[in-house]
Amino acid sequence: MIDSTRYPRLSRIQTPHDLRRFAEDELVGVAEELRAYLIESVGRSGGHFAAGLGVIELTVALHYLYNTPVDQLVWDVGHQTYPHKILTGRRDSIHTVKQKHGVAPFPKREESEYDTFGVGHSSTSISAALGMAIANQARGDSRKAVAVIGDGAMTAGMAFEALAHAGGMDEEPSVLVILNDNNMSISEAVGGLTKMLGRATASRTFNALREGGKKILGDKRSSPPARFVKRWEEQWKGMFVPSTAFEQMGFHYTGPIDGHDLPLLLSTLKRLKDAKGPQLLHIMTTKGKGYEPAEGDQIGYHAVGPFDPSKGLPAKSAPKKPTYTDVFSDWLCDAAAAEPLLMGITPAMREGSGLVRFSKEYPSRYFDVAIAEQHAVTLAAGMATQGAKPVVAIYSTFLQRAYDQLVHDVATQNLDVLFAIDRAGVVGPDGATHAGNLDLSYLRCVPNMVVMAPADEAECRQMLSTGLEFKGPAAVRYPRGSGTGVAAGTDLSTLEIGKAQLRVSGRKLAILAFGACVPAAETIGRELGLSVVNMRFIKPLDRAMVLELAASHEGFVTVEDNVVAGGAGSAVAELLNAEGVLRPVLHLGLPDAYQHHASREDLLAEAGIDAAGIRNAILKRWPELATVPALSALG
Amino acid sequence: MIDSTRYPRLSRIQTPHDLRRFAEDELVGVAEELRAYLIESVGRSGGHFAAGLGVIELTVALHYLYNTPVDQLVWDVGHQTYPHKILTGRRDSIHTVKQKHGVAPFPKREESEYDTFGVGHSSTSISAALGMAIANQARGDSRKAVAVIGDGAMTAGMAFEALAHAGGMDEEPSVLVILNDNNMSISEAVGGLTKMLGRATASRTFNALREGGKKILGDKRSSPPARFVKRWEEQWKGMFVPSTAFEQMGFHYTGPIDGHDLPLLLSTLKRLKDAKGPQLLHIMTTKGKGYEPAEGDQIGYHAVGPFDPSKGLPAKSAPKKPTYTDVFSDWLCDAAAAEPLLMGITPAMREGSGLVRFSKEYPSRYFDVAIAEQHAVTLAAGMATQGAKPVVAIYSTFLQRAYDQLVHDVATQNLDVLFAIDRAGVVGPDGATHAGNLDLSYLRCVPNMVVMAPADEAECRQMLSTGLEFKGPAAVRYPRGSGTGVAAGTDLSTLEIGKAQLRVSGRKLAILAFGACVPAAETIGRELGLSVVNMRFIKPLDRAMVLELAASHEGFVTVEDNVVAGGAGSAVAELLNAEGVLRPVLHLGLPDAYQHHASREDLLAEAGIDAAGIRNAILKRWPELATVPALSALG
Repeated sequence: MIDSTRYPRLSRIQTPHDLRRFAEDELVGVAEELRAYLIESVGRSGGHFAAGLGVIELTVALHYLYNTPVDQLVWDVGHQTYPHKILTGRRDSIHTVKQKHGVAPFPKREESEYDTFGVGHSSTSISAALGMAIANQARGDSRKAVAVIGDGAMTAGMAFEALAHAGGMDEEPSVLVILNDNNMSISEAVGGLTKMLGRATASRTFNALREGGKKILGDKRSSPPARFVKRWEEQWKGMFVPSTAFEQMGFHYTGPIDGHDLPLLLSTLKRLKDAKGPQLLHIMTTKGKGYEPAEGDQIGYHAVGPFDPSKGLPAKSAPKKPTYTDVFSDWLCDAAAAEPLLMGITPAMREGSGLVRFSKEYPSRYFDVAIAEQHAVTLAAGMATQGAKPVVAIYSTFLQRAYDQLVHDVATQNLDVLFAIDRAGVVGPDGATHAGNLDLSYLRCVPNMVVMAPADEAECRQMLSTGLEFKGPAAVRYPRGSGTGVAAGTDLSTLEIGKAQLRVSGRKLAILAFGACVPAAETIGRELGLSVVNMRFIKPLDRAMVLELAASHEGFVTVEDNVVAGGAGSAVAELLNAEGVLRPVLHLGLPDAYQHHASREDLLAEAGIDAAGIRNAILKRWPELATVPALSALG
Repeated sequence: MIDSTRYPRLSRIQTPHDLRRFAEDELVGVAEELRAYLIESVGRSGGHFAAGLGVIELTVALHYLYNTPVDQLVWDVGHQTYPHKILTGRRDSIHTVKQKHGVAPFPKREESEYDTFGVGHSSTSISAALGMAIANQARGDSRKAVAVIGDGAMTAGMAFEALAHAGGMDEEPSVLVILNDNNMSISEAVGGLTKMLGRATASRTFNALREGGKKILGDKRSSPPARFVKRWEEQWKGMFVPSTAFEQMGFHYTGPIDGHDLPLLLSTLKRLKDAKGPQLLHIMTTKGKGYEPAEGDQIGYHAVGPFDPSKGLPAKSAPKKPTYTDVFSDWLCDAAAAEPLLMGITPAMREGSGLVRFSKEYPSRYFDVAIAEQHAVTLAAGMATQGAKPVVAIYSTFLQRAYDQLVHDVATQNLDVLFAIDRAGVVGPDGATHAGNLDLSYLRCVPNMVVMAPADEAECRQMLSTGLEFKGPAAVRYPRGSGTGVAAGTDLSTLEIGKAQLRVSGRKLAILAFGACVPAAETIGRELGLSVVNMRFIKPLDRAMVLELAASHEGFVTVEDNVVAGGAGSAVAELLNAEGVLRPVLHLGLPDAYQHHASREDLLAEAGIDAAGIRNAILKRWPELATVPALSALG
């Protein structure tokens, strides 16, 4: 329960209806309490942190002025919605965020009517809000639609597409886009939009004016005059730079204004609320605002584990098992040392994808293209035509956004691009929007692709080397976190393409296991006396191995951390059918449904592809195995 | 052989090396001959027409000044590359364009070293050229990279992503982007970028100046002063409007200039060729330039069949069998009459997808979002949250570009969006980049989706009604051209979800046929006395039907016009395995390889899924059937 002494106002707010009972001059106090409560609760639970702190005032202002949930707020990406969740019925449960059965880490329609559009990937909010505005208008309903989007998310092409459509419509839709400009995506913001927003290369006029202002007002950044200069800078940047671009696209532009100045936000939003046509409000905010350590380390505080807010994040603990991301990170630098034309590409996920070290050691071969998965992949294709060796480091779920580029630009032309696909399979606490459950299905249907999944860290490294050496499109997909903990090694040895590894020679059944499912499959295979194969390659499959096992076994079990539909196991069934070999196959994999957020272990168990689940499924189909003594028991 | 009397210059040009032997003042003559030759040869072969006519001068200028193929020209989309092909070794074969073993309709790397980047989908050229420039620089190679992109293609998000990246790089890449601005995509250009490029809402200052200019110079559009006004307009538009946006993104902007003024093009390109950093040259051209009927009907002359250039396109012949596109077109209008919240969405394919009539009859419910597949789908998702009934009309191959939006925005939230997927399966003369070979694989792995494929036109209409009625994401995928020719009817009746149709009750084997493959399968099934099912639903499969047939048949044949990998047949194998039912399954479908351009019939035959191919495959696996008298023979 919330402490009404520490939170005299917030404790009275269950929903925005309660918020709207406060007098306007009390809202600064509400915002203060909301910020303190967020710091306290994320300190307890961990979760996305700095982004929420940056929109405390905006969240209060929007729910105060708009008639939510009738009026519709669409939050882009959703990292920043903990304050929104606290004000909309989830105050007392926010500390359960990301846990199984707890509050979802992102807006989720089935969780709350205030969460108007589920999200997790970036840059969808303008399209969604525009769709809502059009549909509402068609129904004769005057409810409002507001999109809140960060400058990082604005770099993605689909945000541009949506702006262009909204701004160009003959019948102007009444939609408000709030550009929350904090000069950050999850990593630092990069690229031409950042330029356009006036930071990397502000116009000469602006720079001259700024220099003039500094001379007049002095340059003590913490003094009130310096704050005024800062505000003045923002004004000038707004006047010279982004307004033109947005206005040229058909938007009415307002800003930039200080997004932490609640009275100013309220007065501005009141005016825009009933304005006709597409409106863009540009606010400047500070990620981590109001919690000094987070303001100073916005990347470190983007998402955190539980911590004591009075002490800040704990020092990095002693190195645990390296994650697959770490393995990729080390491999990339080692491979770059050996291959001078290796290029590393990331769509704005330098930290998450493990390119920090590479970006420092090989800055001229490091390309952060902003949140621009499509461009990332076709850029790689262009590089490959000239003999470079591009490596696209990308999360499985985000590769969905570059699917056409993978098919049309890379694979159709059989170009030599390596995809290093992190967060493949079950991802866990980030929920359904971040799941990497589909990649084996959508990749293996693509001609020319080689698709690999490692059983452990050492094999991941070998597969990355194999994919780099292979002259054509190749993908290595590996899970979140760490594997068995086996040392990845330091060499750049490769594997034979399409060759599986027989791990256990047993009898009756052969378990064909893929990637992260190999260790559990091996455990159960040994226990039940079955053969176990680490398949390594989803495409091409090891045909000889499968046929050999078919000749000596009664049936197969396939195990993968991908949906069964069209996945790796289904490739095995296709192969057997193509060869006219009749054997029962039990397909184990992820369900044909979205999985809710929970720990990776929980989700693997729910899907029945942890060791216990594999065992149960095999014994259910072949009960007679329960009585067979395991090979190990036989010695 | 080319007629050297009519084409005294062009007949001496086999490659750009020959072109570069001409004196500069002869190039206007070369361009004239190239235009005449293009008109003559496309008149003979049919093909993409108006776009090529618009870039005659540009093509001559680029190959004259740049050292192709060492220097690299990347043509966006590729509709406009017939003149490029004529100048680069394919002059004498251009009349075979789109035919089997003939010249490919788009640039294709394996066809010519002058085709630096294969294409067919739009908006990839800037990414590709930037990748080339970066790789060349890394190799210490000073060759140039040039992207030529239309204003239509510039509307896609990935073009914006590429511009933003190129313009924002610390180490400025030397890449030239030529914006070929003809105010057209394949349909009319729409949206905010069009506004930005100054047509829909030029700035007030510009309008005032233009009005002033008209007063001074008169408004006779064909007189030389009027031409001057037009040029002056373009100048002013450039000064006030696009330059700022591109420059703000970090590009050096030049233009707009008249793209048909060859001397001006040459002098401008000479200057830009060695300029450092990212350059954008904005040229204004006329689609269809130099062939009056095409200038007057740019949409009609975008792609043509063979015609007599002295007469223009033949009048529409008497209506043939309606195509699937026609069936969709009629259905959409009929359904819209019955459902006031139906919304029709197209990413710039009004004509191709059959929305012309709908756009006229229901203009307020018609949304052409420009070449912006990603936005199209998430816009639909936003509409669906408010109870509207969005229908996204899209080609199979282009839906690849909205895959993440389909997964993350529509299906994860189980939103009520209908995808009307045209050009599914084998597409034919447009080649590999337009093939719809993958959609069953990449759709059926997505939870919540209903996926249908009609056996004929009437069923297509029923499936569209079924998908519209279904409360969730549904897809109907239908092929290019027409089917059996059965009348589609006029009602809005629906089918039961997941229910297959037994067409022939036979013995021994059951052919499970999907979509366009049903008629051929039925023919062969009758001939061989086998059961034949029109499966109708790829997802959910008709489990009861499959199990019932398994009980009474020795085996199955699945037939689909999708790749076998992860396709509909593979779903059947998964079902049998899940049920523990052991039956041989012969999977017939498209190969795990890109198919070259050829007629649809040729490609179906090559893949072995026409009637003869199905017959051969079945008899190869079950030779004993050859001796079984067909049911029909038995009476």
